[in-house]
Amino acid sequence: MRTTDIIRQKREGEELSAEEIVYMVDGYSRGEIPDFQMAAFLMAVFFSGMSEDEATAMTDYLVRSGETLDLSGIPGVKVDKHSTGGVGDKTSLIAAPLAASAGVVVPMISSKTSGFTGNTLDKLESIPGFRTDLSVDEFRTVLGEHGLAFMQQNQDIAPADERVYALRDLTATVDSIPLLASSIMAKKLAAGVDAVIFDVKVGAGAHMKRQLDARRLAQMMITIGRRADKRVQAMITDMNQPLGFAVGNALEIMEVSQTLQNMGPADLTRISLELAARMIFLGKAAQSLDEARDIAQTKLIDLSGYRKFKEVIVAQGGNAQVLDRFELLPNALGAREITTPRGGYVSGINAEDIGRAASMIGAGREIFSDTVDPAVGVILEVKIGAKVEAGSVLARLYFTNEDRVEEAAEMVEDAFRISNAEPESRELILEMVG
Amino acid sequence: MRTTDIIRQKREGEELSAEEIVYMVDGYSRGEIPDFQMAAFLMAVFFSGMSEDEATAMTDYLVRSGETLDLSGIPGVKVDKHSTGGVGDKTSLIAAPLAASAGVVVPMISSKTSGFTGNTLDKLESIPGFRTDLSVDEFRTVLGEHGLAFMQQNQDIAPADERVYALRDLTATVDSIPLLASSIMAKKLAAGVDAVIFDVKVGAGAHMKRQLDARRLAQMMITIGRRADKRVQAMITDMNQPLGFAVGNALEIMEVSQTLQNMGPADLTRISLELAARMIFLGKAAQSLDEARDIAQTKLIDLSGYRKFKEVIVAQGGNAQVLDRFELLPNALGAREITTPRGGYVSGINAEDIGRAASMIGAGREIFSDTVDPAVGVILEVKIGAKVEAGSVLARLYFTNEDRVEEAAEMVEDAFRISNAEPESRELILEMVG
Repeated sequence: MRTTDIIRQKREGEELSAEEIVYMVDGYSRGEIPDFQMAAFLMAVFFSGMSEDEATAMTDYLVRSGETLDLSGIPGVKVDKHSTGGVGDKTSLIAAPLAASAGVVVPMISSKTSGFTGNTLDKLESIPGFRTDLSVDEFRTVLGEHGLAFMQQNQDIAPADERVYALRDLTATVDSIPLLASSIMAKKLAAGVDAVIFDVKVGAGAHMKRQLDARRLAQMMITIGRRADKRVQAMITDMNQPLGFAVGNALEIMEVSQTLQNMGPADLTRISLELAARMIFLGKAAQSLDEARDIAQTKLIDLSGYRKFKEVIVAQGGNAQVLDRFELLPNALGAREITTPRGGYVSGINAEDIGRAASMIGAGREIFSDTVDPAVGVILEVKIGAKVEAGSVLARLYFTNEDRVEEAAEMVEDAFRISNAEPESRELILEMVG
Repeated sequence: MRTTDIIRQKREGEELSAEEIVYMVDGYSRGEIPDFQMAAFLMAVFFSGMSEDEATAMTDYLVRSGETLDLSGIPGVKVDKHSTGGVGDKTSLIAAPLAASAGVVVPMISSKTSGFTGNTLDKLESIPGFRTDLSVDEFRTVLGEHGLAFMQQNQDIAPADERVYALRDLTATVDSIPLLASSIMAKKLAAGVDAVIFDVKVGAGAHMKRQLDARRLAQMMITIGRRADKRVQAMITDMNQPLGFAVGNALEIMEVSQTLQNMGPADLTRISLELAARMIFLGKAAQSLDEARDIAQTKLIDLSGYRKFKEVIVAQGGNAQVLDRFELLPNALGAREITTPRGGYVSGINAEDIGRAASMIGAGREIFSDTVDPAVGVILEVKIGAKVEAGSVLARLYFTNEDRVEEAAEMVEDAFRISNAEPESRELILEMVG
């Protein structure tokens, strides 16, 4: 009875007490509240939202459901960078090495969530030998030695979150602002970081479709973080077209390598540098943001970030040669060109459709339990603003299995909008919050 | 994947195709779609609603999930009366015998749903020997002979509805207009009736809290009915205080008996007579509504309805003597007076609280699987508008088990609002729809 009452209260838009929030999530975690009641509750939260107090109570419970990483033995300010996820978003793999090479300690803990495309862990795992399933001790060792380590969220960190996430994934309740905020912040708080910079993506290829929602998500995460005495800032960035040119795990590692050698796409480079600068500033490795930007730029140009990434790849068992010799990465077996039937200006590239197409041929997960094919994906040949002629190539699809290539190719073609007029240029970094 | 997409579409307020509706409900019925996905879908429907087309598709599927009763062998127009349920609502047991005694054929098929108080079947089952689990053949026989029969919805009638209802009950998704409309109409269409009069309750003690929602529910049921060539009308009536004085199964049977002998409460008598008149008119046993009202009044005064009810009780195995000798009904073991600490006018009696209190001591189901205690309940001593003095009795609680009597008594006391000023009188029948 109590459970149904709580679902009803949330459905009616009432604010729940911390005890009621804990009753629900804890009951579900312990198997006492059945998944169908939790599912109804989550959908009610999707519609009714949660107050900051409710989201904080949720976060606190998720943190307490597991262990908190003790990173106090490692000197320096620990700064995390987290993206809410977008198509072609590989900024973590660029900004984190740049910041670490500037002396910031960057503990990167990610979870394997579903999404249009592979996540940070999937991208790293496309590097032969790279291990993301580190023990906490291994993680601390790599982090202490190199100032940067990547780890898959294990069962000890916010385990209740993993369980809730799996249910959200199957019930179309992932894109809820308070659920996203509490899930993300629980992992950050349990990871023992001092500060976090968020890259909140907004647009067709992101969880948040509207800037207003992205801002609300950012604000909620900042509030939860501040209540736990963490320094938290958020950058809201455009995700209406894929970031960079590459979408797909090994393909993105190649683009990361190029970008860390200052030969990457302009949009990806710009956002990665700004994120790195924010991390350097939050990590107290610079006196001002301007100084931090200079440092990030220097670390890019002198290849410090590039070398740092190689160091960490080796430290985590991977073959760092892949950054120079792309043929050592998993390679697709076939390629398929997508051409434009008409000339004009590229005025739109629907990121969600590109992501779905890549996912369809194996680059991402359609459901939580899917496995990812590291080799496959999409390489855009043009981005918004490019002038194209009839018959010119818009993108290439790399696949290992022909099964759904036709369908994916059509989806990629449909993702492109070609106009007669040159489109207005769009802002990439939309606003800062916090 | 498809299931999650459908949940997301509904969450985003999109209209689903008939195929998508059937995919969900059929998949769930067959155990292919897990209950947690159905629960999320139902909550999304609660918030996003359904179009008339969607609700019709849902209804059609629910009807097709089982068998349709063939009542064509019984001459006459078959008219059903259905209330959306309220506290102390026993109008079915009064209006149906009145209409049947006027020559209308009244097949009453109900389901055992949860609610603040017992449903029609629970009330009938408080009569020793009364059987509601008739076979279809038995039901047809009683209906053919007496023009009135009561049956519990069996597994052959809209079985998918029963399954969905059980889930809605546990996920706080009962009070959704399209889900209520399709569930109710599926049972009516499967029952093979020609016409239905609905009593849609609105107020604190009803599923619909606002008249606007009650009207929308009425309109949706009427539309679904008309698309299936049925004559459907709805009366919207006030449920801000309990109907009549009795709340609780055997207690309500006593009040039904009094009312059928024209000695019942004014509000209950008025609504029951109007419902009977509508049934008589829909059933073509009168040329005009005015004539139908005269007939209903006559059938009340000359005790035809009373005798008809007795006939049917006997036909269904019950002891009809209980209508004259209340001591033959299950009787409570203890009674508890609830008095008012101050004098004034009764300006409000929260029906929901009265219902909950009655339910708490066993008169209704808190969850679907609860069993009902026929003997217990609440008898109001006063209704809105009554002048009371400090210390006078507002209500009596009848119980068989002391467990939650204290809590229930407090709830009953809190349900009463006593004011200095005499309250304005309220309309009982708010509007007619259809």
